[in-house]
Amino acid sequence: MLVEFLDGKARSCARQRMPPEIVATVRRFLEAGGKRLRPLLCVLGWRAGRGHGSHAAVFRIAAGLEMFHVFALVHDDVMDRSATRRGSPTVHEALAASHRSGRTRSGAERFGLNAAILIGDAALVWADELIHTAPLPGATMIQVLAAYDEMRNEVLYGQYLDVQACGQGRADLDGALKIARFKSAKYTVERPLHIGALAAGADRGIIADLSAFAIPIGEAFQLRDDLLGVYGNQAQTGKPVDDDLREGKHTVLTALALQRLEDPDARHLRSLLTAGQLEGDGAQAARRLMDKAGAPRKVEQMIIERRRKALHALAAAANLNGTTPDLQAVATMLTRGM
Amino acid sequence: MLVEFLDGKARSCARQRMPPEIVATVRRFLEAGGKRLRPLLCVLGWRAGRGHGSHAAVFRIAAGLEMFHVFALVHDDVMDRSATRRGSPTVHEALAASHRSGRTRSGAERFGLNAAILIGDAALVWADELIHTAPLPGATMIQVLAAYDEMRNEVLYGQYLDVQACGQGRADLDGALKIARFKSAKYTVERPLHIGALAAGADRGIIADLSAFAIPIGEAFQLRDDLLGVYGNQAQTGKPVDDDLREGKHTVLTALALQRLEDPDARHLRSLLTAGQLEGDGAQAARRLMDKAGAPRKVEQMIIERRRKALHALAAAANLNGTTPDLQAVATMLTRGM
Repeated sequence: MLVEFLDGKARSCARQRMPPEIVATVRRFLEAGGKRLRPLLCVLGWRAGRGHGSHAAVFRIAAGLEMFHVFALVHDDVMDRSATRRGSPTVHEALAASHRSGRTRSGAERFGLNAAILIGDAALVWADELIHTAPLPGATMIQVLAAYDEMRNEVLYGQYLDVQACGQGRADLDGALKIARFKSAKYTVERPLHIGALAAGADRGIIADLSAFAIPIGEAFQLRDDLLGVYGNQAQTGKPVDDDLREGKHTVLTALALQRLEDPDARHLRSLLTAGQLEGDGAQAARRLMDKAGAPRKVEQMIIERRRKALHALAAAANLNGTTPDLQAVATMLTRGM
Repeated sequence: MLVEFLDGKARSCARQRMPPEIVATVRRFLEAGGKRLRPLLCVLGWRAGRGHGSHAAVFRIAAGLEMFHVFALVHDDVMDRSATRRGSPTVHEALAASHRSGRTRSGAERFGLNAAILIGDAALVWADELIHTAPLPGATMIQVLAAYDEMRNEVLYGQYLDVQACGQGRADLDGALKIARFKSAKYTVERPLHIGALAAGADRGIIADLSAFAIPIGEAFQLRDDLLGVYGNQAQTGKPVDDDLREGKHTVLTALALQRLEDPDARHLRSLLTAGQLEGDGAQAARRLMDKAGAPRKVEQMIIERRRKALHALAAAANLNGTTPDLQAVATMLTRGM
């Protein structure tokens, strides 16, 4: 689906004698990997919502969600100035490197960032195009688009909170959980399930049952990601070690550690997280302080509680059309330890 | 329409206890001015396409085009690192200034840029929401969305060419005209007219007649903008003098000057345009060289030719439902001299 769509875009670029780089970059990014979580959950939501017959519409919508994720990640990497994603240079880094000739170093960096902003914008527009051209009856499409609009607003709000809190060294646990809820639980799990279910014409009961599963498991997924971001290695995450620490990301892990430590440890950790450009010894020191606070163990407990809650919700759901085992498997996959 | 829509967004942000800053920033940006060209042309297109009855749908679509323009300008200012727009600080500058406390200068700048990227993303998503919720019959909506998709692709491609050519000091006149066609003629004039006309159910003949007018007048509009960018003052443009020169924008004006000058003048102008951060004496020198090449006079001629062609197309159009005088007035407004 995505391949066909991008082939079409490549042809129309060629026809208008436009640079093939935009399409080629999005294609390379998609080919470099990614777990296709949102498309998977969208199709599961469709099945849970008693979807039957042709998969054409739900596959197109699922492809749109993956294209939207390209947008989200490309802009995220620009905002974080990350160097690596999916084990390869990020889009802005790759474009800066390939447009070095005839430019100063800072000119090439600037070109890379600007081109990546535009490529992210293009992916957002294409996501939309994929979704609103899915072959669905008008009334169903209106429901799907409404949920898609909610999802887009939620992830942008969550991202805004994230950008605001970054490098501020706050002990605000509620704020960190809210970011996890909007950036991950809703965006990665709840809305893709809803969108798929609505494409199948699901009723409110199914939507509510999916939420009861999605929110806790989605939060647990973000908590796992926070742990991997600080204690994982590049082979697991595709991102350089210490990227989260370097940026001073405001996570449940850092908020808990700052809450539980006393001065001078709390002050020390705060100064490390607010200094920016944390790496090597500084990152190691931050990890030691979080360990001393017992923060990773506490986060691990929070993951277990949330997974239990999600599985309980699944068991209590009225009828998810035989998707319960798949959703259980998703719960394991999303929260798997190191 | 936009006010109501933003009020709704503000209420939903408050309900979710989200920062009110995103909505407030978009609102302030819209209130700071802007000519509302695209909404105006959209409504004119609707009338030309024999639109009648309630304006509800076309007004909502026109509001969506203005919201899309917020996205385009906010990201444009991030990419150009512009300081002023519509006579006020740009979004990224204003946000950097209001989040200075608790941040280093570079931290605040970084916050401003990242927040502006997200606010632009939000405006793009909201544009979409406005357009796809306009009360139109399904088959008409499909036509409108197809033209809207084309418009979004075209402006992003044009912007990408622009970013690629910036600071390269090229004498490539065709390339500069292509940027003008995609970034301005199609985006500002042709597609808004088409979208309005399609919302009214216009046939292919009207669409073609609108293109025959829109492309030359839209190119002339960009040529006028190029002249104002180099020879205008801030009161006319709302932007600081020399913003285009500072960035080394690749325009018809600069391409013509580089084509017409001989060394050492050509070399001198090229070095000024590729150096970056051109202002004061350097900008003055660049202007003198472009004058010496007769470039502004030639651009002025190109504007006159294109306006003539557009007015001729208007006179030759079969039946634009009484909008000819309005479109003539638009032609004057878009190409008015200094």
